[in-house]
Amino acid sequence: MEESHEKCVSSVLARVRRLRLRSVRDRTRLHYLEGFRNFIQAIDVKIPVETIVYNETLARNPAVQKNVRLSKRAGVRVVRVTPEEFRRVSVTLRASGIGAIVRQHWTPLDQADVRAGSCWIALSSLRSPGNVGTIFRTAEAAGAAGVLLLGDGVDPFDPAAVRASMGSLFGLRLVRTTLREFGRWASERGCRVLGMIPSAESVYTEVPVGPALVVLFGEERKGLSPEERAICTHTARIPIVGRADSLNVGVAAGIMLYEVLRRRGPPAGGVALP
Amino acid sequence: MEESHEKCVSSVLARVRRLRLRSVRDRTRLHYLEGFRNFIQAIDVKIPVETIVYNETLARNPAVQKNVRLSKRAGVRVVRVTPEEFRRVSVTLRASGIGAIVRQHWTPLDQADVRAGSCWIALSSLRSPGNVGTIFRTAEAAGAAGVLLLGDGVDPFDPAAVRASMGSLFGLRLVRTTLREFGRWASERGCRVLGMIPSAESVYTEVPVGPALVVLFGEERKGLSPEERAICTHTARIPIVGRADSLNVGVAAGIMLYEVLRRRGPPAGGVALP
Repeated sequence: MEESHEKCVSSVLARVRRLRLRSVRDRTRLHYLEGFRNFIQAIDVKIPVETIVYNETLARNPAVQKNVRLSKRAGVRVVRVTPEEFRRVSVTLRASGIGAIVRQHWTPLDQADVRAGSCWIALSSLRSPGNVGTIFRTAEAAGAAGVLLLGDGVDPFDPAAVRASMGSLFGLRLVRTTLREFGRWASERGCRVLGMIPSAESVYTEVPVGPALVVLFGEERKGLSPEERAICTHTARIPIVGRADSLNVGVAAGIMLYEVLRRRGPPAGGVALP
Repeated sequence: MEESHEKCVSSVLARVRRLRLRSVRDRTRLHYLEGFRNFIQAIDVKIPVETIVYNETLARNPAVQKNVRLSKRAGVRVVRVTPEEFRRVSVTLRASGIGAIVRQHWTPLDQADVRAGSCWIALSSLRSPGNVGTIFRTAEAAGAAGVLLLGDGVDPFDPAAVRASMGSLFGLRLVRTTLREFGRWASERGCRVLGMIPSAESVYTEVPVGPALVVLFGEERKGLSPEERAICTHTARIPIVGRADSLNVGVAAGIMLYEVLRRRGPPAGGVALP
C-alpha cells in the first residue's frame, strides 16, 4: 500500500516535471497549473482535469478543498503529496498546495466568433511568457473574447504564462493559427485588424474601435513584421511623451483594451465607463 | 602590468556582485546598471558615473562606444573585461558588454515639485522589482515627473527594477519618504492624492486629474492599507468586466497614467491625445 502510494506520487511528479517542456505539452495537449485562482477558474469553466496534486496543509482554502472533494467524487484522480514533494515541482514563490494536470483548451479558428466580447487580441511571436500571461489577465478583465496566437511564439500553457495570467487564461478562447489563415478569417468576416505600431500616424484614442475588432501586437523588440502590417486595416500608436522609446507590450495591451472598453462600453453586463 | 589589470578586473567584478545586495547599495548609495539604453540614458541626464565595465566586442553600439570614450576623457575609470567576465556579473539574458557603477539619484522630498510633469506616482511597499521597473518605464513615457517611494518597499536600484525600466529610471525624480511625510507634503501643497482601490466608488475615467496630482498604488496583493487610504483625497477603480479579480499593478498604472495624459494633454511638447 505505502509503496504503491510512493510509486504513484513519484510517477505523477515526474510527469509534472516533464510537462515543463514545451515538446511534452505540445504532444500530450496537457499542462500543469498551480494555485488557488488557476485551479478554481479552471474548474469553474469545466476544463477537463486529469490529475490533482494536493497537499491539504498548504491548500487551506475552503473553495479549493471543496472542489478537490467534488472532483474526486466525479472520478478525478487526486494524488496527495507532502509539502516538500509539492515544492519540488512548483514554479511559484509560495507553494499553494494545489496543482492539476489539465487538458489544454483550444478553440479552432473557424469556431472563433469575431463579435464575441469587447474585442480579440492577436499576438505574433511574443518572446516572454510573463508578458503573454499578463496580457491574458488584462484581456479577460477588459472583457476580450480571446487571444489568437499567430505562428509558433510563446506557448500560452507555459508555466510562467499560466502563473502570470492568475486564472484568466481559463476565461479566454485561445486560437493557434498562422498569419495567412488569420488574414483570411478576418477579411471574410469584415473584421478590423488594428496593428499597434510606434510609428503609426493615428493615436490610439482616435482609431475606430467598433465591433469585430482584433488588436494585433508584435514581438517585444521588433514589433510587427511587414507581412503582419499588410494584414492590418488600421494602425495606431500610444504616444510617448518622455524619453522612453517604447512601452512594455503588456502595458500597451492594457491601455488599448481599456480604451476599447471606455468607448464601447462593457460587452455584456458590468460597468459602463463615462 | 597584466597582473595589475587582472587584479583591477577582479576587484571591480567583486564590487559589482556585492552591489546586488540591497544593504551594500543602501550603504554606498551606488548601483550597477547594464545595457545600452540604461547606460546612454544615465549619461544623458548626467548621472555621476564611478566605473564603466566594458567589452568592446559585445558593445557594438556606436553611441555607447562614443560615450565610453568621452567618459574616459572626462576622467571616469573604464575597466575592460572579456565577454566571459562580463557575463559572470550580468543579470540580463543577452550580455550587452556595457555596465557602469553609478551614483543613485535621489530627490529630497522638499525639492519635489508637485506641479512638474503630468503627475506623480506614489508606490507603497510593492514587492516585485519587475513591477516597479515597468511602472518607471510607463511613468516616464507618459510624462510623469517622478515616483515617491513610501516606506522601505522595493529598492528602485534593484538590478531587476533597473533592467525592467529600460533606461526610464534615469528620467524620473525618485523620492524616498514615509507615509506621514508624504501626507504632510501633499496637504501643504493642496495636492490631489488619488488612491487606486478596486472597491472605490468612482471609475478612473471620472475622477478629477487636474494639476498637482499624485496617483497612489498599494502593494500587489493587499492593496492600500487603511493608513494609506486615509491620506487619499480621491479614490478610483479600474472596472473589471470579466472574472479576473484584479489587474497587474504595472498594467493598472499604465491605464491610469494614460488616462491622465488623454484628459490633461502632454505636460510640455509631445502629442495631444484627442
